[in-house]
Amino acid sequence: MSKPTKIVLDESRIPRNWYNVLADLPSPPPPPLHPGTLQPVGPDDLAPLFPMPLIEQEVSTERFIPIPEEVLDVYRLWRPTPLIRARRLERALGTPARIYYKYEGTSPAGSHKPNTAVPQAFYNAQQGIRRLTTETGAGQWGSALSFACAQYGLDCEVWMVRASYDQKPYRKLLMQVWGATVHASPSPVTEAGRKVLADDPDSPGSLGIAISEAVEVAAQHEDTRYALGSVLNHVLLHQTVIGEEALEQLAAVGETPDLIVGCTGGGSNFGGLAFPFLREKLVGRMNPEIRAVEPAACPSFTKGVYAYDYGDTAGLTPLMKMHTLGHDFVPDPIHAGGLRYHGMSPLLSHMYELGLFTAVARTQTECFEAGVRFARAEGIVPAPEPTHALAETIAEALRCKETGEEKVIVTALCGHGHFDLAAYDRYLSGAMEDFELPQERIEAALAHLPKV
Amino acid sequence: MSKPTKIVLDESRIPRNWYNVLADLPSPPPPPLHPGTLQPVGPDDLAPLFPMPLIEQEVSTERFIPIPEEVLDVYRLWRPTPLIRARRLERALGTPARIYYKYEGTSPAGSHKPNTAVPQAFYNAQQGIRRLTTETGAGQWGSALSFACAQYGLDCEVWMVRASYDQKPYRKLLMQVWGATVHASPSPVTEAGRKVLADDPDSPGSLGIAISEAVEVAAQHEDTRYALGSVLNHVLLHQTVIGEEALEQLAAVGETPDLIVGCTGGGSNFGGLAFPFLREKLVGRMNPEIRAVEPAACPSFTKGVYAYDYGDTAGLTPLMKMHTLGHDFVPDPIHAGGLRYHGMSPLLSHMYELGLFTAVARTQTECFEAGVRFARAEGIVPAPEPTHALAETIAEALRCKETGEEKVIVTALCGHGHFDLAAYDRYLSGAMEDFELPQERIEAALAHLPKV
Repeated sequence: MSKPTKIVLDESRIPRNWYNVLADLPSPPPPPLHPGTLQPVGPDDLAPLFPMPLIEQEVSTERFIPIPEEVLDVYRLWRPTPLIRARRLERALGTPARIYYKYEGTSPAGSHKPNTAVPQAFYNAQQGIRRLTTETGAGQWGSALSFACAQYGLDCEVWMVRASYDQKPYRKLLMQVWGATVHASPSPVTEAGRKVLADDPDSPGSLGIAISEAVEVAAQHEDTRYALGSVLNHVLLHQTVIGEEALEQLAAVGETPDLIVGCTGGGSNFGGLAFPFLREKLVGRMNPEIRAVEPAACPSFTKGVYAYDYGDTAGLTPLMKMHTLGHDFVPDPIHAGGLRYHGMSPLLSHMYELGLFTAVARTQTECFEAGVRFARAEGIVPAPEPTHALAETIAEALRCKETGEEKVIVTALCGHGHFDLAAYDRYLSGAMEDFELPQERIEAALAHLPKV
Repeated sequence: MSKPTKIVLDESRIPRNWYNVLADLPSPPPPPLHPGTLQPVGPDDLAPLFPMPLIEQEVSTERFIPIPEEVLDVYRLWRPTPLIRARRLERALGTPARIYYKYEGTSPAGSHKPNTAVPQAFYNAQQGIRRLTTETGAGQWGSALSFACAQYGLDCEVWMVRASYDQKPYRKLLMQVWGATVHASPSPVTEAGRKVLADDPDSPGSLGIAISEAVEVAAQHEDTRYALGSVLNHVLLHQTVIGEEALEQLAAVGETPDLIVGCTGGGSNFGGLAFPFLREKLVGRMNPEIRAVEPAACPSFTKGVYAYDYGDTAGLTPLMKMHTLGHDFVPDPIHAGGLRYHGMSPLLSHMYELGLFTAVARTQTECFEAGVRFARAEGIVPAPEPTHALAETIAEALRCKETGEEKVIVTALCGHGHFDLAAYDRYLSGAMEDFELPQERIEAALAHLPKV
């Protein structure tokens, strides 16, 4: 066999810089606005929540930002991640397309999230912060931050949505193994939590409530900051190690991609893979189509509007201009919890408006069908989120089978599904539902957009 | 940093041969005996259960056995596995020892078991077999075989001990994602199962019963064979890819090991790492101590006897000369299910008698303490089985801290603990018990050894 199946890089090839796509855009994204004054948010507004190095990264226009040695030292535990040619899947599909997947499930937390959790924990520790707070839904982000905090001796406090806390004990246990304190949210330890519990002692919680609790504790303590796992510019920045490595790996086998495919919830996995390829496209070194895949149950790109909206349900965060279904839109309970967000990264939203990539939506059952097909051919059982990218990849590969095109497709397999097997059970037993999303429901939520 | 933390090899470096330690032993192990005639078991006795290429490997004295191209093609999905220098653990312990771990958790099934499941499935498919049967306790082996069967288009039927089937649904679901049929054992589909159910409709099952069911179905059908995940020579043979890769990885960083440490249940993980190092030791190229670590609750090497005994509880298998606690010894319910076996690989037992390696026992709580310590330093949450090797490794590293020795320790991290977090929960909550194993209990079981 002339070309390898699995393209691995020596750890000396971990990128030394994150790539900041802001440097190469024709115009910057509109600024976030203070929810009270409606003025652009400044560094001072963010200082109670984030350490200054991260605030600087949030607004930087430097093209490359050096990765600190102390962060590389932890990245080395699992990076570079493999880029794998899906030969067995190609054979099963009978496609002339060549499919490559960048597998981020080799990280200790099992997803791409540690790529940003590690530097976030590092910068906070460097600034003398002793504790980080955050929220988590199904637990991917909470476990990544727990792992990262353990590496720098930080305490980690996670508010986990009550429904997940009760139904998904394994991810909670994973956080505890790494030493984190995990609260079911709403919790009695915050004002925000107590308020909800007073109204409804049996509240199942929500990401919006959990954010309020984590932010409240961070804002009240000098030695505590808050950490966010997606949406913001600095989060997408840290994830660009994915795309930088993939570029080098494709070059090593002499391939030029025709299509880049990633799933989008808050946007960090997609941005992390796509931005370095977009840079190469902008300077004319390659010309791949770049395609985002979102759930049909939460289609912010394909059915939402581009408008200023809140990041949380309660309307406490800054207003961000983004593709949104409305901050009080509650997505149906699809199993891809990481994609159940009413909004989208403002940076990606701006780039979508500039026409730099396309977007499509996929239903839950077609995604799990793709996940099972992938698992049986390639072995890895994917998390529900990246099955969206796999469904699109497989559909494209089957189109190539008809046309005979030898398209080179690169997709992001951002995590494994070891903690999501109950969802596969529903699919295999025929009990998985697809949700209708009537246009009126979106319109009702959009009617509540803030007036800016 | 001059030397890498993570030593990865290109897939062209996957070993092309398995190493057969039988070629280098001063004497062969005593043969297995037919349970009826007490005569040595011949190929014809095994033919209803195993395909001829595996029977040949079981008795071969060839030093190197070529790995078929079709097996390498699947190994490539995750092999070579990384050898990782545990720098962060060393720092946390303050030891001058240099600790390396060979991590097998990157396989799709999350352990070293696919190293033998894949060739077993391949040889069966090559011989025209259509279906494999097997038993599984906690599910590590069953999931590895399910994955392997999916790669060669074989049906896979797994009898999973009822207690695990009910308590550990995730591993069952993993097998189903790969297309396997999973029966709770005792099951109504076999004679053996129906017999147990007639006596006790609520039987929690046992590995012994599950083996009987899987063997019964294999023996009754021309197109069906049985597969075993440990103990036998051909299984240990296939696992030597672990040690061969580790040898090359250590050479790449100029290290010579002083100590090799692995956990032992049936022996396949330990043998897989240790055999290639033993070969190098026998020819004088290095001189590492080789140490097996077993659970204090199931100490076949350190408290058992070396005698002919049955492989199963019911006494249906051939008699094997091995270290045993007696075939009706029932180990206490430690969480390291993969180490709860009354016997030991006959090959390893023979080698232990020859003085080729040493053995120690560790209690459950000291193992989990080591597992948590490792997870917080290195990120990876280990399966309960390899925490035994980690407990010994950490103890040795702390001894080095006292003596100042810069010992090079190599240990086998044979799988991740993503499906074992309930056990970590028990440890972290202080509810984990250690079991006393009174000498009388061992003696009672040994009194039932077959008379040979």
